Amino acid sequence: MKQNIVNKVREKQPLIHHITNKVVMNFTANGLLSFGAAPVMAIAEEEVADMATAADGLLINIGTLTTTEYEAMILAGKAANDKGIPIVLDPVGVAATSYRRQAIENILQAVKVTVIKGNAGEMAYLAGIPWETKGVDSIGDGNADEIVKKIAKLYDTTAVVTGKVDTIYTGKQLLHNNKGHVYLQRITGAGCLLGSILTAFLTTDDSIEDKILTALEFYGLAAEYAASQPNVTGPGTFKAHFIDALSFDPSYMEVNND
Amino acid sequence: MKQNIVNKVREKQPLIHHITNKVVMNFTANGLLSFGAAPVMAIAEEEVADMATAADGLLINIGTLTTTEYEAMILAGKAANDKGIPIVLDPVGVAATSYRRQAIENILQAVKVTVIKGNAGEMAYLAGIPWETKGVDSIGDGNADEIVKKIAKLYDTTAVVTGKVDTIYTGKQLLHNNKGHVYLQRITGAGCLLGSILTAFLTTDDSIEDKILTALEFYGLAAEYAASQPNVTGPGTFKAHFIDALSFDPSYMEVNND
Amino acid sequence: MKQNIVNKVREKQPLIHHITNKVVMNFTANGLLSFGAAPVMAIAEEEVADMATAADGLLINIGTLTTTEYEAMILAGKAANDKGIPIVLDPVGVAATSYRRQAIENILQAVKVTVIKGNAGEMAYLAGIPWETKGVDSIGDGNADEIVKKIAKLYDTTAVVTGKVDTIYTGKQLLHNNKGHVYLQRITGAGCLLGSILTAFLTTDDSIEDKILTALEFYGLAAEYAASQPNVTGPGTFKAHFIDALSFDPSYMEVNND
Repeated sequence: MKQNIVNKVREKQPLIHHITNKVVMNFTANGLLSFGAAPVMAIAEEEVADMATAADGLLINIGTLTTTEYEAMILAGKAANDKGIPIVLDPVGVAATSYRRQAIENILQAVKVTVIKGNAGEMAYLAGIPWETKGVDSIGDGNADEIVKKIAKLYDTTAVVTGKVDTIYTGKQLLHNNKGHVYLQRITGAGCLLGSILTAFLTTDDSIEDKILTALEFYGLAAEYAASQPNVTGPGTFKAHFIDALSFDPSYMEVNND
Repeated sequence: MKQNIVNKVREKQPLIHHITNKVVMNFTANGLLSFGAAPVMAIAEEEVADMATAADGLLINIGTLTTTEYEAMILAGKAANDKGIPIVLDPVGVAATSYRRQAIENILQAVKVTVIKGNAGEMAYLAGIPWETKGVDSIGDGNADEIVKKIAKLYDTTAVVTGKVDTIYTGKQLLHNNKGHVYLQRITGAGCLLGSILTAFLTTDDSIEDKILTALEFYGLAAEYAASQPNVTGPGTFKAHFIDALSFDPSYMEVNND
Repeated sequence: MKQNIVNKVREKQPLIHHITNKVVMNFTANGLLSFGAAPVMAIAEEEVADMATAADGLLINIGTLTTTEYEAMILAGKAANDKGIPIVLDPVGVAATSYRRQAIENILQAVKVTVIKGNAGEMAYLAGIPWETKGVDSIGDGNADEIVKKIAKLYDTTAVVTGKVDTIYTGKQLLHNNKGHVYLQRITGAGCLLGSILTAFLTTDDSIEDKILTALEFYGLAAEYAASQPNVTGPGTFKAHFIDALSFDPSYMEVNND
């Protein structure tokens, strides 16, 4: 892990504009704030372009999409493109309904995104590769390397498939992250918050490979550390300690990681 | 408690589509996920029928109702009826405004619901029995047996009145549950999450009496267990430990329940 | 701290109607409920006037404002004015976009508010005094005394600027509160929940000076107490213990406050 990148993000305290789903708004804001960046959420079409222009990065997550929010995402995305700030797109549940499918296609046509990040089922769907899904969650195994390479090419972007192993393809390099904990699948919004943290890391001037890999490793390490705390007895107590761990120094967690 | 029903629900991991209130979305999703079922939330009119058709059960909760959500509830409810999956309706705050009253009446005319579940004030109101309420909360005592019987008859459904004692009438049997803890009234959305858990239990092929009673007893036991943990010092720490307890085996909690 | 006012609010259990932002709805409801008052959230234009009329106080917070919610705020505010119940306005992020600016101006023209409460950046902006802000958060130092006096005069209201020291001007008296903890800045919605608690305190018949100062001191003491708990290791565990502390007796926390 490149600890200097973690430090740089925290020193910069980037303002990240979120248009995200209603289920995870609170958890996302608390997680990003604990880490050391500045979350802002604005969804009205009348103000999203102003907010994106004031921000250092934009996260778009379609988890509880409605038509007005979808239009706001396009407006914010175009403003973010105009300013040249990074955009992360999380296609939550895109395989579940044709409405989400169409929304993601339209967003990707109107907005140039820096990273598309999703679970295997969502990303396989976007890549046109068969995959079994259940609701917004992905089940089963498959070739994530193939998926990220295909998405990166199709949409001229960087692709991240999250799972037990996270798989990244930047158009140049294929990377993997093994850090993480099964508890992340037992709480709602772990993937959504990761999208937010990832957006914050993208605001530094390091290579995209270093930024994404460091973000994923840091996030996974925080999960491992939190899961090892003696007071954690299930997903509820894990969640509180995970928010705590996101505020810690990675070297502290590495030394104390069981 | 019929532990085999708890096990069956967890093995099935039913996908439960929620159209619920914005205050409790995160808590509900985390609680249901911790228990072992799969929550999904979708509210756009364009996709709710697709999502309900993909799901194993539907929860409708009017706690922060708006007109677009109300229309989505009708669409999702009809799709759920067409597929034949269970529907739980939680008439949050129905006695508080004529808008909620009208919405519940329209939903109940358009959609056949498996269970109506509410606190005494809400359910008494639906039954046309006088009751004192304050906002969305119910205060005072009364004859819950009379309320559930009247609602079950009026709407040809199963009725559950929650409270210190939960009262159930399935059209055939009158049942009561004594498990629970006063802390459930000190956190927001305990009744809302119960509706979600109840929907998950309804997806097995057991008798409706066994499914509902087991769900209520399991939920109450988890609350009792969580409240007895030494680290619980108020509603905030209780909430985290309650989410933990929802993931546990009932026999483990019974043995360790003070 | 006037403990008798804390006791009076808890005995009254005032029903507080919230039209607040989607990020903090759950935290606000849990915090107010833990304290001992009764939160209700309703946002549909069709019912907000009914709900405000049934309530003992109204909180308006523009953190994730949309046009329909803005119209609901005006309707609820007018109903609250007609009934004569206190209204607290929290102009979250007002300096960030012209949309929020215009909304606050329109709300303040249509509705007479009891208290305007915000951080220094928001309140300086409303007062027309230069201040540096970043997104919805305020950074830097300045003359809060000048800000509250100007806002109180401009809008014929009581003004509260929150920060390391909270500054209050009621039109008659300038007051300050030093209680609090830096952890409040590390969790999302600490200011939003304070607005809700403040609304509950305003429902007693004490002087506005005593009510506001007691509310701020109680809130700050609860934060100090929670932060001193041995199980608190970061913002996530702090949040749970802070919710706990809001339910405690102030004299208990004073004695046990490190």
